[in-house]
Amino acid sequence: MSFTLSSLLATRTEGLFGSVIDASTALIASQPHDVVRFAVGAPSEDLIDATAFDRLFGTASPGKYSYAATEGDDSLVSEIVRLYEQQGETTSADRIIVTTGGMQGLDVTFKLLVDPGDLVIVESPTYTNGVITALSYGADILEAPVDEDGLIVERLPELVAASGKTPKIIYVIPNFQNPTGATLSLERRRLLLKLAEQWGSVIVDDDPYGMLRFEGESLPSLKALSRNSDRVISVRTFSKILSPGLRLGWLETSPSLREWIINARQAIDTCSSVPTQHMVRAYLAEGLLAPHLARTSELFLERKQAMQRYLAEYFGSAAHYSDPHGGFFLWLTFTGELADIDTKRLFPVALAGGVAYIAGTDLSLRLRYDNQLRMSYATSSPERIKQGVERLSRAIETYRAT
Amino acid sequence: MSFTLSSLLATRTEGLFGSVIDASTALIASQPHDVVRFAVGAPSEDLIDATAFDRLFGTASPGKYSYAATEGDDSLVSEIVRLYEQQGETTSADRIIVTTGGMQGLDVTFKLLVDPGDLVIVESPTYTNGVITALSYGADILEAPVDEDGLIVERLPELVAASGKTPKIIYVIPNFQNPTGATLSLERRRLLLKLAEQWGSVIVDDDPYGMLRFEGESLPSLKALSRNSDRVISVRTFSKILSPGLRLGWLETSPSLREWIINARQAIDTCSSVPTQHMVRAYLAEGLLAPHLARTSELFLERKQAMQRYLAEYFGSAAHYSDPHGGFFLWLTFTGELADIDTKRLFPVALAGGVAYIAGTDLSLRLRYDNQLRMSYATSSPERIKQGVERLSRAIETYRAT
Repeated sequence: MSFTLSSLLATRTEGLFGSVIDASTALIASQPHDVVRFAVGAPSEDLIDATAFDRLFGTASPGKYSYAATEGDDSLVSEIVRLYEQQGETTSADRIIVTTGGMQGLDVTFKLLVDPGDLVIVESPTYTNGVITALSYGADILEAPVDEDGLIVERLPELVAASGKTPKIIYVIPNFQNPTGATLSLERRRLLLKLAEQWGSVIVDDDPYGMLRFEGESLPSLKALSRNSDRVISVRTFSKILSPGLRLGWLETSPSLREWIINARQAIDTCSSVPTQHMVRAYLAEGLLAPHLARTSELFLERKQAMQRYLAEYFGSAAHYSDPHGGFFLWLTFTGELADIDTKRLFPVALAGGVAYIAGTDLSLRLRYDNQLRMSYATSSPERIKQGVERLSRAIETYRAT
Repeated sequence: MSFTLSSLLATRTEGLFGSVIDASTALIASQPHDVVRFAVGAPSEDLIDATAFDRLFGTASPGKYSYAATEGDDSLVSEIVRLYEQQGETTSADRIIVTTGGMQGLDVTFKLLVDPGDLVIVESPTYTNGVITALSYGADILEAPVDEDGLIVERLPELVAASGKTPKIIYVIPNFQNPTGATLSLERRRLLLKLAEQWGSVIVDDDPYGMLRFEGESLPSLKALSRNSDRVISVRTFSKILSPGLRLGWLETSPSLREWIINARQAIDTCSSVPTQHMVRAYLAEGLLAPHLARTSELFLERKQAMQRYLAEYFGSAAHYSDPHGGFFLWLTFTGELADIDTKRLFPVALAGGVAYIAGTDLSLRLRYDNQLRMSYATSSPERIKQGVERLSRAIETYRAT
């Protein structure tokens, strides 16, 4: 008797599709020729402190290979609490749970909170991997637009009214948003908290980039503005500040939700890789993070400025782009004579020509950003950035000639 | 306005509760006095090859800190394929996906296949963490009894008929089952495959211990007996053969389900810890696994025999116990004058007296194993085992005196 597994898939798989971002990483990695990687949301190899990591990974440490507590290694949790103190925010060990990357923080949060049909507001454009996670638990997604001050919170009441549902979760990336690089203004942060209170919604505050500010002044976090309300769940990761391969992050939340998360994790992956937890604990305890962040931020500023300079040089007024004050990404819009470019159709031409990015349309579920794209300046030196922008310019010539 | 997160929890959390096994690990770890750990399902510290792990973790390796492909590092996948070849089984890279421990293999499998209300058959007693995972996606659980030849497959038709549903998944631990130590007989393996075919069910074959056989002959796997049918999904882990803190395992399944799992993982945790994958890859490539398994199996046999010897010495005919041919666990039943012992009520007395185990009743959802318990011989030397059995005997005296 023939047997087809696909006929047995759970209904929730209807909302489950792979990540265009991850697929593009694999596609780019498989190219036989040199590619400037503006697509990748990861620090460049030279900005990963591999020598220190190798040294610390190679150091014996009691309990390193046994199970850790599901909520995370005690000493690592203490170091995370200290990170908050250093930034003038308060938390406590009973509000922290170590996760297997920020992605798992989103997964477990949505698993615990999303019932099929629940309304989840997301930014548009946004980090679609996070949205897919909500979809995988049956969320009904409402996309709300972003401008240079982040999520346009003033638009939410009208969008929510039109949806006919009250939002259960508002998923937001408040600092140096992926993909626009925009930072949610203080006024909007306050309005967002007010609306969430009015609707009884939870705010999932996904902030992978907040510690990578290279210009301007930090804004108080949603958590701080809410006076540590249970309403704000903070998703954090070491992926962008240390390295993505570690797959380590944390959640900051109320002690009661934390208990639920611990229970949920015991049916998900028990605990996060223990040697990795010990390595990061030692890295933080040795005080290596602050100088690393200082160096990284300085180089990111240089790289962002280089990217803006070369974009101006090669595209003039035919390209507009955002001006992030931190993080990895710049959001580019083709205008004027280039306004009709479809960045999704341009992509194979650009890839063949040796430069990769994420097309705008891949950063939304339903809305179209045909003439826009996400560029990461984090992964390339200024010289490489020049080469990449030049290749992009040539790819556009080829694209327009066909 | 006061805000209570718990009122927002998704319906699926009704089926979600923490792991009694994990909670007991934390409880035991927090005891101020010396405890013989018969409760823990992990190799003892002296059976973890920490020196080699530290050396390999400390070695630089290209790409070690970047994202890996979601399906796993290519070279690690090749090493896993070689493990199958060494055991005379066949597989291929397009059937393997690296997971964040065996627990995640179960989580992603149940996430993809279990709709609320779907019938999932599990062994009883069993590894309840796996059952909790199925419950967290809304499974309807049917507990089927186990004897010394594993799951009593002959009983399934009658139990399934009584349930009024057709099983979608049969979750089985075929080798040195947790907690009984029983191995599913060849005849029952064949009958199980036949019934699964008749019902259109998937078999989730969870086999953490299969490579830890110290007596008797290996039986062909369900996968091999099914001629690599899509019906059998194999969940494997390095936790029991290398160390649990690594949180690394793999799934072996059809290429089509593997594609679904890759998609699902991109909304779960992107990929497994990359330095950990590189370390295990190097460990396997250096040929260190085979001698490690030989040494471990030899010591486990010695430890099992020691445990049986001391149980006979201290309890005589008042305790029966299983005779596992591999793995970690022995299943003990109090009989005769001790038949009325409630091992769940005995536990705090035993813990105070310096010995820990898992009470039988914690290894099932609804069925009761009041006078039974799970004992791991893997974690203690013969001398420690003697001490533990002695303490257990004294705890019983105290318990019966009150």
